[in-house]
Amino acid sequence: MLKAKKAKESLVVMSELVLPNDTNMLHNLMGGRLLHWMDIAAGISAQRHCNNIAVTASVDNVSFRNPVKLGDVITIQAKVTRSFNTSMEVRITVYAENIPSGSKVKSNEAFYTFVALNENGVKTEVPELIPETAEEIALFNTAMQRRELRLVLAGKLKPSEASSIKSIFN
Amino acid sequence: MLKAKKAKESLVVMSELVLPNDTNMLHNLMGGRLLHWMDIAAGISAQRHCNNIAVTASVDNVSFRNPVKLGDVITIQAKVTRSFNTSMEVRITVYAENIPSGSKVKSNEAFYTFVALNENGVKTEVPELIPETAEEIALFNTAMQRRELRLVLAGKLKPSEASSIKSIFN
Amino acid sequence: MLKAKKAKESLVVMSELVLPNDTNMLHNLMGGRLLHWMDIAAGISAQRHCNNIAVTASVDNVSFRNPVKLGDVITIQAKVTRSFNTSMEVRITVYAENIPSGSKVKSNEAFYTFVALNENGVKTEVPELIPETAEEIALFNTAMQRRELRLVLAGKLKPSEASSIKSIFN
Amino acid sequence: MLKAKKAKESLVVMSELVLPNDTNMLHNLMGGRLLHWMDIAAGISAQRHCNNIAVTASVDNVSFRNPVKLGDVITIQAKVTRSFNTSMEVRITVYAENIPSGSKVKSNEAFYTFVALNENGVKTEVPELIPETAEEIALFNTAMQRRELRLVLAGKLKPSEASSIKSIFN
Amino acid sequence: MLKAKKAKESLVVMSELVLPNDTNMLHNLMGGRLLHWMDIAAGISAQRHCNNIAVTASVDNVSFRNPVKLGDVITIQAKVTRSFNTSMEVRITVYAENIPSGSKVKSNEAFYTFVALNENGVKTEVPELIPETAEEIALFNTAMQRRELRLVLAGKLKPSEASSIKSIFN
Amino acid sequence: MLKAKKAKESLVVMSELVLPNDTNMLHNLMGGRLLHWMDIAAGISAQRHCNNIAVTASVDNVSFRNPVKLGDVITIQAKVTRSFNTSMEVRITVYAENIPSGSKVKSNEAFYTFVALNENGVKTEVPELIPETAEEIALFNTAMQRRELRLVLAGKLKPSEASSIKSIFN
Repeated sequence: MLKAKKAKESLVVMSELVLPNDTNMLHNLMGGRLLHWMDIAAGISAQRHCNNIAVTASVDNVSFRNPVKLGDVITIQAKVTRSFNTSMEVRITVYAENIPSGSKVKSNEAFYTFVALNENGVKTEVPELIPETAEEIALFNTAMQRRELRLVLAGKLKPSEASSIKSIFN
Repeated sequence: MLKAKKAKESLVVMSELVLPNDTNMLHNLMGGRLLHWMDIAAGISAQRHCNNIAVTASVDNVSFRNPVKLGDVITIQAKVTRSFNTSMEVRITVYAENIPSGSKVKSNEAFYTFVALNENGVKTEVPELIPETAEEIALFNTAMQRRELRLVLAGKLKPSEASSIKSIFN
Repeated sequence: MLKAKKAKESLVVMSELVLPNDTNMLHNLMGGRLLHWMDIAAGISAQRHCNNIAVTASVDNVSFRNPVKLGDVITIQAKVTRSFNTSMEVRITVYAENIPSGSKVKSNEAFYTFVALNENGVKTEVPELIPETAEEIALFNTAMQRRELRLVLAGKLKPSEASSIKSIFN
Repeated sequence: MLKAKKAKESLVVMSELVLPNDTNMLHNLMGGRLLHWMDIAAGISAQRHCNNIAVTASVDNVSFRNPVKLGDVITIQAKVTRSFNTSMEVRITVYAENIPSGSKVKSNEAFYTFVALNENGVKTEVPELIPETAEEIALFNTAMQRRELRLVLAGKLKPSEASSIKSIFN
Repeated sequence: MLKAKKAKESLVVMSELVLPNDTNMLHNLMGGRLLHWMDIAAGISAQRHCNNIAVTASVDNVSFRNPVKLGDVITIQAKVTRSFNTSMEVRITVYAENIPSGSKVKSNEAFYTFVALNENGVKTEVPELIPETAEEIALFNTAMQRRELRLVLAGKLKPSEASSIKSIFN
Repeated sequence: MLKAKKAKESLVVMSELVLPNDTNMLHNLMGGRLLHWMDIAAGISAQRHCNNIAVTASVDNVSFRNPVKLGDVITIQAKVTRSFNTSMEVRITVYAENIPSGSKVKSNEAFYTFVALNENGVKTEVPELIPETAEEIALFNTAMQRRELRLVLAGKLKPSEASSIKSIFN
């Protein structure tokens, strides 16, 4: 059995400068480019946890609020929240920073899941995750519920059997 | 009031060849690159419907099943399913085609929403959408339910008030 | 002998959004970028017809008329017009669409030829093409003449032996 | 009237290393990428001659012979051959060099034409070109004939009126 | 006068995954790509310190030791070490991490300098830097010496007047 | 023993057009992009000299003086100055050309060193270099001094043992 690893060992920080080709006609960062960066940061985090290749299995609902401008700095933080047999959930937090004003706001938050593959492309076991801080423990505890919703939305679990979600809507 | 437009007027087809930089160590297409392409195709579809700039407002849960290989051809179809005051829901279907075998499989399906902005970046009204085929009508009718779930997941609607979703889980 | 395939099976549609790096100092799409996109679309079309790798053998004269602006949408259609022993001619039609005005104009038309190669890089036989519509049949019938001109321009055929072209100039 | 400029003043040399994303499944340079590089090199040459923005007006027939491999070095030479009122013809010669063997072969040759535009995007006069070497003079002298063929192929001149070409085919 | 800022406020962390186009024929990261990433990370750090646009003024000697492989993760840390009137020195440390083995080694270290410009492109004053840790203080103290060497190497200071360097060589 | 080669055989000329993604918020070329282009041009030069793969070993101090604007043309010249056992020093000169004004100024000068590797990634012997012109001979003669400084700066040689540099500072 693989040795469990701490959540903080998987922390990835990735800063990117918003360049012209990342922006639309209003000089705002395009959502797809941000989703791409988030995937790379989260993938590195998952790979660090499992010491194997990690491929994207799903992306949870992401919403985009404030426009991010050309020249702004994007800082993405990604950390594994919980591992399952051969998969991991990664939480991504995105901050947008405006250089002249020095303001920095949280612009997005998302959960991506990854599957660990060995060099032959076969699914492989993943170490257990040890959450330590209060936030890590809270995210660890709610991971099953997000996983259930994911399975319902992907059509792999009947809504009537999604016990942890049902309780929310009632 | 703006003249309503038919769903089919917003259809966008986008083919892409999977090149080395789009792939991971196993020579499979990375999820983030696909999310980026989907965002561009869906954005063009939304812009065609509203004849204005359309920016990504949210991405619903996307799951990735079969690996797409280097050299495969990705075909993305995007079409507006319903418009709201200043926003539009776009449905994206992704097919992956393997050239030597000639096989073509549906690899993903997703819903992105976009907000229409005028050239000053201010939200503007969007034409109503006229669904025509059976599939367009079905997608039009279920759009409110997906919207409710989106608002719940973004923390903008209390689960207890999400009437159309509650019924699913009960 | 390979089973003949219909022209329509090779149809490829590719939409692209004109981004900053695709444009010159006047914010117009650069010709080379468009030639590159046309090559990828036509290459996918040829590969779909032959179910093998297809490499560019030649590009016929292409002329650029109206400027395409930053933010415009390019739609490229490519379809095989005729196959020869190991090569295929592909016709490419390019439309440029301006989002705010909703106008869509044909901006270019071109013929590219491709050679089919197997995985060892050796030329291989290509299925015959079955043209069906009136346009497909017309393009099929004039393909020999374009091929003759191509050979003359590439110095592989003496002008005096290019019988089908001589008749045009007389 | 603008001061005439020598052909050699417009010479552009551009070397590029063939990287993974420039290649197909056989690790050979894709034709479209090369057409793109040729357009940039030729555009710089035309801009040097006219000291204005130059946009691609047409590309003459280009044929691709030998495969260029990943890791090879491409050297593109571009030089204006003749100027017309507001346009210029540029001749492009492409060499492919294999590093381990030290071999260098001519892989392509092409003619692109460019139109000179001022900063408002309006066509502007171009200086006359002074050919000096024997090769420059030969290319200068045959430019009218290539121009006639270009006009015929673009449907702007009737074949029966293309006097210089008719003589070739007879 | 501008309010002094702490060194740690300028810390930038940037993680990048080494993709095919970043590598040479041996699948090792190319030096130029790394210099480019280092420039972006250091530029963000300098911009954070000065809350203005910062442009690269110089790069000190950088040496590349161990090859970094395709699929490795590069982590770049950049922090301002000292500010001068209108310029800042930024120290960059690069780590290369191999995912399967979990090994992480320091691969490079470098100093870049940046000049602060306002939105009209005019040089502007920069806040003083407050070093806090032992390492920050050491780097702050040796910055003048590196600056002197830089000026000598750029031909702006006579070697005989570079008092702090002379002492090293004697 | 390998046959010595002339300096001029390694000359590489590379022209690049400054495009939007190469520039910062002031529409000036970013230093990191230029360092990347310089590395590619110098790497081709080194590879031409050794007919093997050449990887960047070090970059000497580079300073950036005048801003290069969007739309300007960069011309990079690279030529090997001297070879050592398994390494080569390459001198790079960068010119920036403004099209409307026709002005062309030297913008940078730098020395990069490369190590020759065979196809298994092992260091291999490099041919001796034959300098011919006065400038080539001068650069050949001063190469040892630059090499000594490089070793001191990389911490591989004690300043007190760097005899050729000591003399400069005294």
